[in-house]
Amino acid sequence: MNCINTIGSYSFLAEPFHCDFMGKLLMSHLGNHLLNAADFHAHEGGFGMSVLQPMHKSWVLSRLAIEMTEIPLAYDKFKVETWIESVVRYFSNRNYAIVGSNGKVYGYGRSIWAMIDTDTRQPVDIFSVTGNQKKAYITTEKLCPMEQVSRVKILNTAQRLKTICTAYSDVDMNGHINSVKYIEHILNLWNIDFYAHHTIKRLDIAYVAEAHGGDLLHFDVACRDELVYMVRVVKQIENHEQETEVCRCEIHFVKY
Amino acid sequence: MNCINTIGSYSFLAEPFHCDFMGKLLMSHLGNHLLNAADFHAHEGGFGMSVLQPMHKSWVLSRLAIEMTEIPLAYDKFKVETWIESVVRYFSNRNYAIVGSNGKVYGYGRSIWAMIDTDTRQPVDIFSVTGNQKKAYITTEKLCPMEQVSRVKILNTAQRLKTICTAYSDVDMNGHINSVKYIEHILNLWNIDFYAHHTIKRLDIAYVAEAHGGDLLHFDVACRDELVYMVRVVKQIENHEQETEVCRCEIHFVKY
Repeated sequence: MNCINTIGSYSFLAEPFHCDFMGKLLMSHLGNHLLNAADFHAHEGGFGMSVLQPMHKSWVLSRLAIEMTEIPLAYDKFKVETWIESVVRYFSNRNYAIVGSNGKVYGYGRSIWAMIDTDTRQPVDIFSVTGNQKKAYITTEKLCPMEQVSRVKILNTAQRLKTICTAYSDVDMNGHINSVKYIEHILNLWNIDFYAHHTIKRLDIAYVAEAHGGDLLHFDVACRDELVYMVRVVKQIENHEQETEVCRCEIHFVKY
Repeated sequence: MNCINTIGSYSFLAEPFHCDFMGKLLMSHLGNHLLNAADFHAHEGGFGMSVLQPMHKSWVLSRLAIEMTEIPLAYDKFKVETWIESVVRYFSNRNYAIVGSNGKVYGYGRSIWAMIDTDTRQPVDIFSVTGNQKKAYITTEKLCPMEQVSRVKILNTAQRLKTICTAYSDVDMNGHINSVKYIEHILNLWNIDFYAHHTIKRLDIAYVAEAHGGDLLHFDVACRDELVYMVRVVKQIENHEQETEVCRCEIHFVKY
């Protein structure tokens, strides 16, 4: 019998040093847990990075959205459930549920992954690589009760609020700026006082282009209302004038 | 029968987004794993933070040293073994071994923890709080074959190389700059090119005072030789002139 877990489930702990000053798990670390769950589940299905790498193919995270009703607190144990909702040629739609030990749902996530050829950096038809193995993993049995991932439109009122020079710890195994680190840098645009009275309800992030260690990152921020912000992250290679958008993010806060 | 695990052992994975561009686990994340192992083991022994907090007591990390012969690579599974070597009034000496799945030892760690009264911020006699429970956990059965934690003397040739303003993600549950984040910021003083040819052999860090979110951190660096560096981290509260040393670190690199 061939047993297929269309819904992967992986246990995590809200580690104390991954929590903010309110004792809440930082969204960047929660994002990391979702990406890990995706990676583990793909590996189980036989279409993980270890299989793709020798074929010169790779999964690339295109979009990620997380919507929370409650944020795990320090030492909370939770599971990330993950499943593939659909695959449309170059893109795989993978969802997540963040579930507490007592069955309480903290929140949900959605993501879009593209498969690329690592030599040409061009998108690849997913089924042409994974074949039926991946098809068997698509499930509509579980629902993800949150809106689709936003395209994140940046208002033209956006203002440049910060510039950082990316460093050693920002760079991932592929030599690109780490997807999780973008979330961390973006959320650092608000100060401690703001987070004392606001918590994140929803975060949508779209990864547009890759940046490299040593690149400058500019953060342009627009405010739709006092609780909804759009952030455009723009890279600039040192000593070059040209700026290129690398990602955009929309954040919905709620007040305490 | 009362069974005491004088040597705690906890499993970790070198997660892909915790690895650098060479696919090696970042030392800041390894440090986090050691601190987690210490926390879990103290909790098992009945002298963890959950017991201390209601008594208005807390463990405070005073020093940490890590010495590696090999650094775990992405997806490596490893265990952190931890045990208490000795307790001297205000200070507990806790050691670590980082052990691969096949028994290979990646490296060792040493740490010194102080117990403080969270109301007065003064040190507390450890046994007066934990009693014999903690004594039963002291073991000399396992050796930690690395030199004692260094006091880290800063050479007076130190030069200010960088200043950062601490942000939301730098602050831990106690409202202080996160011990792990100091390591991350310090290791960011060297660029990608440097890490392409150098790896960390040993890191000693001494935590001297606490800094808070919004504080400026200055990084003063001295070089003993081309492979040994000392870093003094100095805080400055915004719009104040006074500078206070918050931690100091000594790093030994090896060349590839």
